[in-house]
Amino acid sequence: MRKYIAEVIGTFAIVFCGTGAIVINQETGGTITHVGIAITFGLIVMAMIYALGTISGAHFNPAVTIAFTIAKKFDKKQVMPYLVSQFTGGLIASITLLALFPSNEYLGATIPSGSDLQSFILEFILTFLLMLVILNVAHGSKEQGMFAGLAIGSVVGLEAMFAGPICGASMNPARSLGPAVVSLHVQQLWIYLIAPTLGAVFAVLIWNYINQKQVNNTLN
Amino acid sequence: MRKYIAEVIGTFAIVFCGTGAIVINQETGGTITHVGIAITFGLIVMAMIYALGTISGAHFNPAVTIAFTIAKKFDKKQVMPYLVSQFTGGLIASITLLALFPSNEYLGATIPSGSDLQSFILEFILTFLLMLVILNVAHGSKEQGMFAGLAIGSVVGLEAMFAGPICGASMNPARSLGPAVVSLHVQQLWIYLIAPTLGAVFAVLIWNYINQKQVNNTLN
Amino acid sequence: MRKYIAEVIGTFAIVFCGTGAIVINQETGGTITHVGIAITFGLIVMAMIYALGTISGAHFNPAVTIAFTIAKKFDKKQVMPYLVSQFTGGLIASITLLALFPSNEYLGATIPSGSDLQSFILEFILTFLLMLVILNVAHGSKEQGMFAGLAIGSVVGLEAMFAGPICGASMNPARSLGPAVVSLHVQQLWIYLIAPTLGAVFAVLIWNYINQKQVNNTLN
Amino acid sequence: MRKYIAEVIGTFAIVFCGTGAIVINQETGGTITHVGIAITFGLIVMAMIYALGTISGAHFNPAVTIAFTIAKKFDKKQVMPYLVSQFTGGLIASITLLALFPSNEYLGATIPSGSDLQSFILEFILTFLLMLVILNVAHGSKEQGMFAGLAIGSVVGLEAMFAGPICGASMNPARSLGPAVVSLHVQQLWIYLIAPTLGAVFAVLIWNYINQKQVNNTLN
Repeated sequence: MRKYIAEVIGTFAIVFCGTGAIVINQETGGTITHVGIAITFGLIVMAMIYALGTISGAHFNPAVTIAFTIAKKFDKKQVMPYLVSQFTGGLIASITLLALFPSNEYLGATIPSGSDLQSFILEFILTFLLMLVILNVAHGSKEQGMFAGLAIGSVVGLEAMFAGPICGASMNPARSLGPAVVSLHVQQLWIYLIAPTLGAVFAVLIWNYINQKQVNNTLN
Repeated sequence: MRKYIAEVIGTFAIVFCGTGAIVINQETGGTITHVGIAITFGLIVMAMIYALGTISGAHFNPAVTIAFTIAKKFDKKQVMPYLVSQFTGGLIASITLLALFPSNEYLGATIPSGSDLQSFILEFILTFLLMLVILNVAHGSKEQGMFAGLAIGSVVGLEAMFAGPICGASMNPARSLGPAVVSLHVQQLWIYLIAPTLGAVFAVLIWNYINQKQVNNTLN
Repeated sequence: MRKYIAEVIGTFAIVFCGTGAIVINQETGGTITHVGIAITFGLIVMAMIYALGTISGAHFNPAVTIAFTIAKKFDKKQVMPYLVSQFTGGLIASITLLALFPSNEYLGATIPSGSDLQSFILEFILTFLLMLVILNVAHGSKEQGMFAGLAIGSVVGLEAMFAGPICGASMNPARSLGPAVVSLHVQQLWIYLIAPTLGAVFAVLIWNYINQKQVNNTLN
Repeated sequence: MRKYIAEVIGTFAIVFCGTGAIVINQETGGTITHVGIAITFGLIVMAMIYALGTISGAHFNPAVTIAFTIAKKFDKKQVMPYLVSQFTGGLIASITLLALFPSNEYLGATIPSGSDLQSFILEFILTFLLMLVILNVAHGSKEQGMFAGLAIGSVVGLEAMFAGPICGASMNPARSLGPAVVSLHVQQLWIYLIAPTLGAVFAVLIWNYINQKQVNNTLN
């Protein structure tokens, strides 16, 4: 139960602050700037990992939870409650933002600025790199683990920075579902549910392949 | 006595640098930008935690001191001297800024850009999230504790980044009282005295609830 | 084999995100800004060091691999596969960016904004400082080693920040070769193959000189 | 001898990158922005502390060396060679920048934008806060020491961010002397030689006072 509350709070915080930055930037004529929005996303992910990492593992992201499960590093029975907690956290965040800024149209929903395919590929690659970093810092030595928040927060921040203007840089179905559902812009939501999940799963396959190679080399 | 001096200096540094960024940005026609102001707030909080954390616990914030007391993690007898030290530090900072920039009207006072209620709710949520991070990194394992300055400074920085244009992102009665009193703009000061305090106390309730759940789970 | 895959992935990530920021900034009319591009470069290098440092040593840079070899800290037999891996990673990144943004002309290729000599000298100095930091944090005490990603990522980020507008701040032949070859702008590529390599080797000479001095002082 | 070379290189790097950011910003019509300049200063100080901290103690600043000596934490005999090394590093940096950008008039020299007194007081306070952080993170527990680079680099970065537009945010006589002498703008150099030194020494007095209090409290 503790874990689920942690996942709700963490995902709430990420979606509230991150998409809140997008909403407030629109409401105040661009004061925050795109750079400020990307920094907000990176820092809230990092802070939530340091705050709640020891409680729930700090997924806050259905794609990450599914990928960890496929990697056999996460208990199958906990997948559904984790996903429900994450989507709930994202939805509460978007509802709160709607209450605070009732005239805002998109609430920070992720919408491709170019073709759907372009954003699909970008989201796939972005989440692939993010999950690869997560797998490596979460399963490395203890010292590396200490820097997990810094490394993962940095990847989220830099990917939001460089890819945000094209695909929105979601990398997280829960971050996209909340604003899309609450603002009633769900046409292209499927991209942000599927592409990040496939990207994260692909990272597990590559990671397993590399580590199998290592085992084989050790045997020879 | 050492602790109180540390609280005066730390709060002075946060208010002097943070509101100083707002003042100098106004005086120089926006050179620092909103992004620069938010980065200044985040970094000075982080630096002061690493510098003075072992001396006073690095509260620098009456809402944090009150919340820690309600959480029974702080000695009741020290609450008043801590609050006095924090408000004193903030006041000295604003007086110094007035001496340096006598023509500046607001001295960085926090004033809602929209309705009072909107800013009240935002300040409540911002300080709730900040205090939740503080409770978790301050009471986690030692390694987490090492990253406390980074995590807490990041939350202050990102909240200043995304919410500053609406409510000023105070999260701290001492940060708001100094500029308000010295610049004689105290009309909406009550928001920044009450909302952060309530938000921080609410974080303690949630935190206690989660940890009680854990204790119960362990017993069963 | 594991090491080589890690070098391919790491160099791919750095070139894809870093030059991707340049490309997307051009495609979207400057949304990311020069500051955002520099932050992207610094953070992706830091993240990749924390993610893959224990596997391959996280060079991702032919100049670094060559300098480590001259410093007798890297096995000669591995130089060629490392260089091939790094150039391959950079090329895949540029090909992917071309597929996503077929109308972009330069793909983030580094091109001097002033004279060739000016950029040559700048790249030499930039990579000299970068390699000096790498040599010191990679061979210092364990605690320092923990901060290697932060220190090295910071140098890449700040050098991209201040020197990017003049020379492109490559500091890395693999980062420059990919975009130059794929975008067919190879006229000034030689600067970015030679100057960073010489700068990194010069850092080794200075570093050896300092450390020899220390040995002599200890003997006397 | 090793220490002196480290102080020359570290001060060279800080002045070359930091004032280089100011010079290149002017030469390229403001691409780097004030925010980018401040970030450059903060990151190069942090990186140099992690790179050279174990060799020379990473002063790179005559005001810091003098303050440490007055605090009886630094050998008097080494003061002169340290100061000479620091001023030499700063001068080489400015000469190199002049060679690269011969038409630049100020080379990043610090010049008050308002009254001399205003900048004098600001530099005094800025260096007071910087030295207070240095004294605390350099003499705290080992864990704090690990974060010294992060804390000190952050203070330099944030002070450059918020106070740079008024006084230049030098906090370091060697950072100011190089550009002033090489660009022949020495009229107000005295401010930046005297105010930071006094501010750093004042931090030592406050720090001693706090720690004496502690000793007395322990005795009673």
